[in-house]
Amino acid sequence: MLRLRRIAIDTYPENIALLSRRCTTYRAEEFQALKKIEVVGDGRTLLATLMIADAEAIVGPDELGLGEQAFRRLGLPEGSGVEISQATPPASLEAIRAKITGQTLSGDEIEAVITDIASHRYSPIEITAFLISCASFMTTAEMLSLTEAMAKIGNRLKWDAPIVVDKHCIGGIPGNRTSMIVVPIVAAHGLPIPKTSSRAITSPAGTADTMEVLAKVDLSTREMQALVEREKGCLIWGGHVNLSPADDILISVERPLRIDTPEQMVASILSKKLAAGSTHLVIDIPVGPTAKVRSRTSATRLRKMFEYVGDKIGLTLDVVLTDGSQPIGTGVGPVLEARDVMAVLRNEPDAPADLRERALLLAGRMLDYDPALRGGSGHERARELLNSGQALAAMERIIDAQGRNETSYPLGSLVEEIPAPDAGTVAAIDCHRIARIARLAGAPLDKGAGIELLKKVGDPVRGGEALYRIYACVQADFRFATDLAAEGSGYALDRSGTTAAT
Amino acid sequence: MLRLRRIAIDTYPENIALLSRRCTTYRAEEFQALKKIEVVGDGRTLLATLMIADAEAIVGPDELGLGEQAFRRLGLPEGSGVEISQATPPASLEAIRAKITGQTLSGDEIEAVITDIASHRYSPIEITAFLISCASFMTTAEMLSLTEAMAKIGNRLKWDAPIVVDKHCIGGIPGNRTSMIVVPIVAAHGLPIPKTSSRAITSPAGTADTMEVLAKVDLSTREMQALVEREKGCLIWGGHVNLSPADDILISVERPLRIDTPEQMVASILSKKLAAGSTHLVIDIPVGPTAKVRSRTSATRLRKMFEYVGDKIGLTLDVVLTDGSQPIGTGVGPVLEARDVMAVLRNEPDAPADLRERALLLAGRMLDYDPALRGGSGHERARELLNSGQALAAMERIIDAQGRNETSYPLGSLVEEIPAPDAGTVAAIDCHRIARIARLAGAPLDKGAGIELLKKVGDPVRGGEALYRIYACVQADFRFATDLAAEGSGYALDRSGTTAAT
Repeated sequence: MLRLRRIAIDTYPENIALLSRRCTTYRAEEFQALKKIEVVGDGRTLLATLMIADAEAIVGPDELGLGEQAFRRLGLPEGSGVEISQATPPASLEAIRAKITGQTLSGDEIEAVITDIASHRYSPIEITAFLISCASFMTTAEMLSLTEAMAKIGNRLKWDAPIVVDKHCIGGIPGNRTSMIVVPIVAAHGLPIPKTSSRAITSPAGTADTMEVLAKVDLSTREMQALVEREKGCLIWGGHVNLSPADDILISVERPLRIDTPEQMVASILSKKLAAGSTHLVIDIPVGPTAKVRSRTSATRLRKMFEYVGDKIGLTLDVVLTDGSQPIGTGVGPVLEARDVMAVLRNEPDAPADLRERALLLAGRMLDYDPALRGGSGHERARELLNSGQALAAMERIIDAQGRNETSYPLGSLVEEIPAPDAGTVAAIDCHRIARIARLAGAPLDKGAGIELLKKVGDPVRGGEALYRIYACVQADFRFATDLAAEGSGYALDRSGTTAAT
Repeated sequence: MLRLRRIAIDTYPENIALLSRRCTTYRAEEFQALKKIEVVGDGRTLLATLMIADAEAIVGPDELGLGEQAFRRLGLPEGSGVEISQATPPASLEAIRAKITGQTLSGDEIEAVITDIASHRYSPIEITAFLISCASFMTTAEMLSLTEAMAKIGNRLKWDAPIVVDKHCIGGIPGNRTSMIVVPIVAAHGLPIPKTSSRAITSPAGTADTMEVLAKVDLSTREMQALVEREKGCLIWGGHVNLSPADDILISVERPLRIDTPEQMVASILSKKLAAGSTHLVIDIPVGPTAKVRSRTSATRLRKMFEYVGDKIGLTLDVVLTDGSQPIGTGVGPVLEARDVMAVLRNEPDAPADLRERALLLAGRMLDYDPALRGGSGHERARELLNSGQALAAMERIIDAQGRNETSYPLGSLVEEIPAPDAGTVAAIDCHRIARIARLAGAPLDKGAGIELLKKVGDPVRGGEALYRIYACVQADFRFATDLAAEGSGYALDRSGTTAAT
């Protein structure tokens, strides 16, 4: 028997265990090669990845250390007696071996894999084996099974309404913060829209990061339900709502690998929407040379995949292909994006027109789901709700209900303007590069960091005129961002017929 | 700047770094999602997987902790100033993304991947992505590139001889310890045979584990070279010789995933032989219902793959398909196998005939490479060397040269015989199950643990007569092994025309 010891190391989503090389009860080397052990104590079991410790300060020879997550999951107090053995690999790994050899998996097999992943029985390398074996090819039936299996696990929200709408953008376009305009429009109309969003992982801002400039976003499931019942809409972070936790684990491996296949995207998005209790969904697929989807052909293929799975799981879907050729609005980064959003809601004269029009387009498609409206009048109704200030009022109510942020975040005090090298017309803006520069500047962790775009595609510029402004809060970040912008601004200019990157 | 701190945790092959959640210089959460950081100090850089620590006892807010392997690789003293940044993923990862989408990789692309893996620039999940993307399909040209790329990295031995022979068995058959007979026969004949072997990872004994019963096996490259020059042969553990270190890293991920594709097997084996300076190779592929290769068709496919790559890299190859229908010899586990080997070398009357014949077959094929011998007389020559005691004498010299083991390992004192339930004839023995039972009994870490087979296929048995004996040194292991044997012995009996598992 080993004594359980808590080790204050966070390795989400992996369970880790530490055994002393001089362990007196077990031979550490016996377990090391296979890396995974099963921990048993007081009738509870846990699979964990094994590391060997060489210092008594970390674990003693009669102790088993568990990292924070593993310790919490096992749920036994420090000092409890535990035994370990070589872990039997989860039976569902057989399905992955079959998948590698080119077989397709049944719904039951996929469900077994997803259940084991959600129960933290898979190590990161096993999760990777699953993701990569599916990334090579996946049938539509497998994609459907994956969606259903992921939606089954975790919370499932229920709403007392015949129509529950939601929207989702597949991402990749800086400043595309339409949710924060669409939700108040739809809520003002009276359709429930329980919107959960992510925080940015690789982008300069997620909707949750931007909304957080205005209000509290880390609400519980119960708080969210009360909020949507009262105000119809919400704009919260999905982290505490535990919809499709298997998807969260898959994402934690997909992100560092930068793998984002259409099939996994469809399953990820639709499983979360199904779990959130949505019935009607609008999906925004921006298409452009530096967007996630780069051609109409790929966009159409992706649209059909969404439609196929949506039909099968009973989600009514409207997939909209939009212009993804440049950033939307003028701000990139939480404070700057929040400013754009509020300018649109307040109908300010210099509010970015592209953000306004994109939001009206999407909100209109969502309102078209309302049987009470005349066919095709959704867009007009959305415009009316925005122009009349009803959408702004709904947003103010949502902000108050979530918890208005009383401290205001200032813009970064380190500012540099990136000039056009020559006169010309803006021919293209690289979404990727703008996102990277804004992220280096400190967004989203520094809410006031980011980029303010002063010129958009089609705008004429004089030589030396500023294309955009970089804001940063920390000197090192400022230098990283301005250095990258100096290497290449992300703008291409058209000078009397010839296009050149600046 | 953070101060470097050494953390006594072994996570081979992964570099790990620990940052305090309360780090004052960097925001831990900024780095956490992508998991990988680049550490820079005094002009040196290192990629490492990041973990977040919540206790000052592990790392302080102004420190960066590195696990043992990462600390050694960076090569800076504790307390050195280091900076960290988000790691740029290795450029070769692009090739893996291409592979996932179904493209084939060029030799340069594969070499770039292998170079990055050998330089510890890949995390385990990235290594897995490579392995799985290749496991789905791999062209013969890719397999060849992989072999060449792996052989290029690490040590490359050179021998002053026109013919340097070696043998390799793909494994899976308990007790198949032919190397320890073949090497002394070939060395006695005078052909150099620099044999390196592995320790068991999932099997009850590797050749290195068994040879260690008789002699020291962890020799350095230099000791090995001196030994082979003097005695022609050696039987050492490959761990210190550093042949194909990229392969060792791939294996450390393949093993826990239990992935063993033919292409990766060919590249792994041939890259090591090429690096070892072998020119002529005999490969043993046992074929049987519970062996690694289960049909003549798969065996022939594998043979052709070995031949194709061998021809291209200039290794002369002879692939032998052998009977893999049951364990070889009577012993399974280091002490028992060493006893079988020495009985054959000593020409003892009760020495296992199948082990003797298998060794003579393989040694004969190797001796046939000697231009000084008349065509087809290798087998006869091998028998002569064995029968005359010259092979035994060569083995004794090799043992002395490596360092004879003066302490003898006793057999396990916990013994149980597994009886036949009824009378009949042994119809089949499950190699897998026998290996698992022997391993549970404590082999190879307890040298004296294992299984002694008392009956082989074709032997008649009386009801209640012992089929085999389990030996163990530790009570818990003994119980695990006998429990598994009680569930199913691994023997199938033929009772007047009907076969039944016992």
